[in-house]
Amino acid sequence: MATQKVATSTIHPLAPLSASEITSVASIIKTSWPAHTDLHFKAITLEEPPKIEVLKYLEAEHGNKSLPSINRKAFINYYIRNTNKFHEAVVDLTTGRVDSNVLLGPFVHAPGDGEEIVAIEKIALEDEGVKAEIAKLQLPEGTQVISDPWIYGSDGVNDSERLWQCFLYLRDPLNPSEADSNHYALPIPISPVICGVTRKVVRIDLLPTGADNTIKPTQKYKIQPPNEYVPEYQKLRTDLKPLNVVQPEGASFTVTQDGTSNILSWQKWRFRVGFNQREGMVLYDVRYDTRPLFYRLSLSDMNIPYADPRHPFHKKSAFDLGDVGAGLMANNLQLGCDCLGSIHYLSSVLSNDTGSVTSMPNVICIHEQDAGIGWKHTNYRTGRAAVVRNRELVLQTIITVANYEYILAWLFNQAGEVTYEIRATGILSTQPIDEGVEVPFGTVVHPGVLAVHHQHIFSLRIDPMLEGPNNRFVYDEAHAMPRSAFNPHGTGYTVSETLVSTSGGYDLDFSTNRVFKIQNTSVRNPINGKPVAYKIQAPEFQKMLSDKESFNYKRAEFADHNVYVVRHRDGELFSGGKYTNQSRGGTGVRSWAERKEGVVDTDIVVFVQAGINHVPRIEDFPVMPCEIMKIHLKPVNFFDRNPALDVPPSEQRFNKSVALSTQHHQPSVVATVGEDGKTCCASTGSKLQCRNMVDTRV
Amino acid sequence: MATQKVATSTIHPLAPLSASEITSVASIIKTSWPAHTDLHFKAITLEEPPKIEVLKYLEAEHGNKSLPSINRKAFINYYIRNTNKFHEAVVDLTTGRVDSNVLLGPFVHAPGDGEEIVAIEKIALEDEGVKAEIAKLQLPEGTQVISDPWIYGSDGVNDSERLWQCFLYLRDPLNPSEADSNHYALPIPISPVICGVTRKVVRIDLLPTGADNTIKPTQKYKIQPPNEYVPEYQKLRTDLKPLNVVQPEGASFTVTQDGTSNILSWQKWRFRVGFNQREGMVLYDVRYDTRPLFYRLSLSDMNIPYADPRHPFHKKSAFDLGDVGAGLMANNLQLGCDCLGSIHYLSSVLSNDTGSVTSMPNVICIHEQDAGIGWKHTNYRTGRAAVVRNRELVLQTIITVANYEYILAWLFNQAGEVTYEIRATGILSTQPIDEGVEVPFGTVVHPGVLAVHHQHIFSLRIDPMLEGPNNRFVYDEAHAMPRSAFNPHGTGYTVSETLVSTSGGYDLDFSTNRVFKIQNTSVRNPINGKPVAYKIQAPEFQKMLSDKESFNYKRAEFADHNVYVVRHRDGELFSGGKYTNQSRGGTGVRSWAERKEGVVDTDIVVFVQAGINHVPRIEDFPVMPCEIMKIHLKPVNFFDRNPALDVPPSEQRFNKSVALSTQHHQPSVVATVGEDGKTCCASTGSKLQCRNMVDTRV
Repeated sequence: MATQKVATSTIHPLAPLSASEITSVASIIKTSWPAHTDLHFKAITLEEPPKIEVLKYLEAEHGNKSLPSINRKAFINYYIRNTNKFHEAVVDLTTGRVDSNVLLGPFVHAPGDGEEIVAIEKIALEDEGVKAEIAKLQLPEGTQVISDPWIYGSDGVNDSERLWQCFLYLRDPLNPSEADSNHYALPIPISPVICGVTRKVVRIDLLPTGADNTIKPTQKYKIQPPNEYVPEYQKLRTDLKPLNVVQPEGASFTVTQDGTSNILSWQKWRFRVGFNQREGMVLYDVRYDTRPLFYRLSLSDMNIPYADPRHPFHKKSAFDLGDVGAGLMANNLQLGCDCLGSIHYLSSVLSNDTGSVTSMPNVICIHEQDAGIGWKHTNYRTGRAAVVRNRELVLQTIITVANYEYILAWLFNQAGEVTYEIRATGILSTQPIDEGVEVPFGTVVHPGVLAVHHQHIFSLRIDPMLEGPNNRFVYDEAHAMPRSAFNPHGTGYTVSETLVSTSGGYDLDFSTNRVFKIQNTSVRNPINGKPVAYKIQAPEFQKMLSDKESFNYKRAEFADHNVYVVRHRDGELFSGGKYTNQSRGGTGVRSWAERKEGVVDTDIVVFVQAGINHVPRIEDFPVMPCEIMKIHLKPVNFFDRNPALDVPPSEQRFNKSVALSTQHHQPSVVATVGEDGKTCCASTGSKLQCRNMVDTRV
Repeated sequence: MATQKVATSTIHPLAPLSASEITSVASIIKTSWPAHTDLHFKAITLEEPPKIEVLKYLEAEHGNKSLPSINRKAFINYYIRNTNKFHEAVVDLTTGRVDSNVLLGPFVHAPGDGEEIVAIEKIALEDEGVKAEIAKLQLPEGTQVISDPWIYGSDGVNDSERLWQCFLYLRDPLNPSEADSNHYALPIPISPVICGVTRKVVRIDLLPTGADNTIKPTQKYKIQPPNEYVPEYQKLRTDLKPLNVVQPEGASFTVTQDGTSNILSWQKWRFRVGFNQREGMVLYDVRYDTRPLFYRLSLSDMNIPYADPRHPFHKKSAFDLGDVGAGLMANNLQLGCDCLGSIHYLSSVLSNDTGSVTSMPNVICIHEQDAGIGWKHTNYRTGRAAVVRNRELVLQTIITVANYEYILAWLFNQAGEVTYEIRATGILSTQPIDEGVEVPFGTVVHPGVLAVHHQHIFSLRIDPMLEGPNNRFVYDEAHAMPRSAFNPHGTGYTVSETLVSTSGGYDLDFSTNRVFKIQNTSVRNPINGKPVAYKIQAPEFQKMLSDKESFNYKRAEFADHNVYVVRHRDGELFSGGKYTNQSRGGTGVRSWAERKEGVVDTDIVVFVQAGINHVPRIEDFPVMPCEIMKIHLKPVNFFDRNPALDVPPSEQRFNKSVALSTQHHQPSVVATVGEDGKTCCASTGSKLQCRNMVDTRV
């Protein structure tokens, strides 16, 4: 593992903004306003150059030719502080000039940010009306009330203003000094609404706690036992032995720092890693053995609509990327806690509300992992086994969205495959429920605590460049052959390919084994003449349940189809639209697809959705075990054979496994037997590997 | 890790037959025939006692009460050698008597075995007619022809006799001394058919090699380049660094040998591991924290029908468990090759054709693995993260089925979850194709080589005993609420449960998020009153494509539904029927389900299917990268909270991760920084973990 700095005078067009660039941009924007205008910055981030320009740059970069000059630009949005004047600007850092700076129209609202969320929490709790309502609960002296601000959501009812809905909880009243008490185990039925402009409580919603939507006056709160997740409240298991991942010669990857971005090289893979406020980790210019595969890979959006139809819960429909930002919420990953083995960390910088720089240390961890056997075959006639392990490269980022976390990772393997893995964990968003009540839209996970069903729908953006920027989108289906003289026994079936000619949303169909592929017909497989392709393996899931007239449906423009394919347009990165906070639809991928543009042998972008309908189990509380989703991208006739065929065989001299003693807890002397490699299955002199079909009588 | 022998005078009723028991049984059966009758044994295996008796035994075993006496019995099947007289017998080892011994009717054929397969290979190649046909290929002197015997399959056309179909291939003619040459890269169009009784070639099929079913006379064979998979023919990668898994204090599990079976204890899990010829690894009496979960878990069957409708390929429809046996084909697993880390191996014994004992060393490997983060939550207000890793226990077995391999594993985790993982790898079954020809039922993977599309459909048998032997089978579905005063914005949805009252086949439906659960309504969750349950998470797949009148469909009785639920009957273990070789249907799970028995609060068995329609890519040749399928069993309201909450926090002092240097390939001095645990996220004094929503301005 080597990190080295590239000596370049130019900044790479896909490199995130540096700290000094962020500061310059803020200064340029501030200067464009009268002195002492107080701006509340929401984002200062890289304005990626037009793809067509970047492609030329990449061609020069990979061809070691002289690099074209591309102006460096930043995208900014901001409020005039304490107003609803929301602006969007582009600053050209190369010229030092403001390219554009416009006030955005009505119904366009900025995401939350760190300063604001902390402020809103406080406003909710310090409001005299809220205090009076809380007093009716007759809580023990010293009880800590916690306020979780939620993006207000949209339903078209008096929601043109930018608002916040706070849900309130208690820390364990019997243990009030415990700052890490799980307040989600003690929800209270009071929910203040706060104006984002005036920062005042505009309304206090009381929450329904029965089976219907009756609102009862606030009354004495029955204090239930706590349900803590931090380890000092558990009787921890004592029988787990350490398991260490050791790379005595270091890791197999190389990170080359190039300004604010990093070039990663590993096992014929090569790509550039970026990071921004909205998407967090972004991969650019992904190549295998120098062959271009993907221009840009990123998590584009996610939506989490909740099942409780009662006010104000019906507005719970989070877009965590657009409402806050996966970059802004990225955890500072810690050695030995979040990643196991030999780890390289990437850090970044983002802007904050004042236009200053926020340091984002260790937002991405990079390591290798063993993923079991990669491929194996035993020749039963000779007993010789050939086996390789599947080593993976992992780039992981973890985001905390108030109660919930997502562990997001790109995985690369030695067979030319890329996987996007989503782990959902963290704490369920809870609300109070009366004892003895059951509802069909949620699960009681603790006395007095309801965890409402909700969907998690993720949208992965795949901007391909398989052997060049012009690709097409097709799908294979398998169909039974009709009976005929050619198929007299009714056993035959065929696979046919269908070309997707216009932009749109398309769905999986397991009854026909429908498999989507990104293809380049101008490059053919040298053996079988098929166009080179990558297929998409995505899990099936239940699409958005909210009805088609609902705001939920209109806003989550990606949530109704397994895939969307559209013609590429610069700036169309976010499948739920650029501004999701209190959005009203019409600005995301469904709208782009409705242009019905041709998508054959042109610059296309594919959005792949995955999801779960999370019907909470009590086992998901107080923190849920990870639920894992994976989207795979796998080569189809892109190579001329298994690309992992050249992985060195899995051998004991390399793997240094240990045979456990049959008598002792400790690894035994047997451990050393294999170390000369003699027991290894790949050595020709090895013992008969496979007993199948071989007569083993002596 | 400790292995210790239990001192018992009685043999556990679920323990596999010992070597001496196998020998005794063979001797008892031989004695039942006139002297010198030559018997060809196909199986000598444990006849499991009636479940009702074993349940009483288990109750006594776990209650430390005196153990009931259960007679020890063996199941045997055999031919009078070189006849079609196929017998099935049960021997009582306790009394030394033959309980039953019957000649089986027509259309019932035994599986292949090691002796037979090697013999059939040889017969095909030594036949004068076959030699004459091969001569027409005009192969270079010294070319090695390889014969792969296939189970004949059924189509109702002159297939009442027990037959073998051999497919022939060449080792690389230019390198004839290479015994591990990949002959599947050089298929020839000659296919001898051999009688299982007379062991003579009864017919030589010539294979169609064009796009239609024309058969051309055998002609000079065009020798294409080889496509080898063994490492000495590859230019191996040189940039992969070692990755070792080290458990300095040994592993966390305990294996207690109890006669021929083994009791495994790990992280509150406890179960018994068995092994037999047909199913290979079987788990019995699976309990978590002493609570019963599963009486028996096993891979019940699999079927691999091929898409080419042309004779004789239309008969390619393998049932690898019933046609040969997952136990018989189990690999002898090698340290450092097939498993990484600290490994414990289990060995077993099986019978062979003479009734003698075949030693089966290292057929199961057991180890722990790290499976990433188990759960995590960061309190953004305090910055404190709580995180645990997900340690898994793996029991792995690998089977080689001539060209193909399956890596089969049970995985247990600390959250009460069980996963069955299937990895498909090995070499595609190939056939010759004329150059320039394309067919819609296969992919050209090498010049002159067609890999035909095929389905892999697996059937997992789950015999539950959730908190007792009487369980029910239900499914949840999520449905949108209609608009109403209660659901004015069209966002609500509910989850409802449907009881499955009669035995039958049932299907997944992602449009309703249908989730199957095994439930015990007599035991309720103490918090929310819901019945304890385990849900089944299985991937969707395309069901059997062969039409409903086909022999393929009739034989693979499990291949048409995602799940089957039936009332338990002793002996009904194999969802494709007891004898799959040239079977004709009517003896598997579809037939059992058609009894339409009540399955509510009774002793039920669930068969869960998973599969892939394998449309070969050139990347799947010469050995395919693993394709992975997983079936998960997860608790639903079975515990009263996340059962992994008591897993010790993920800490650097335990995990000993290494921060990679920014300058060097080697792990750096930074590696030791975290070793005192101070950087660890779970320690209360830790640095702020999570940047989200926290104002980080200084």
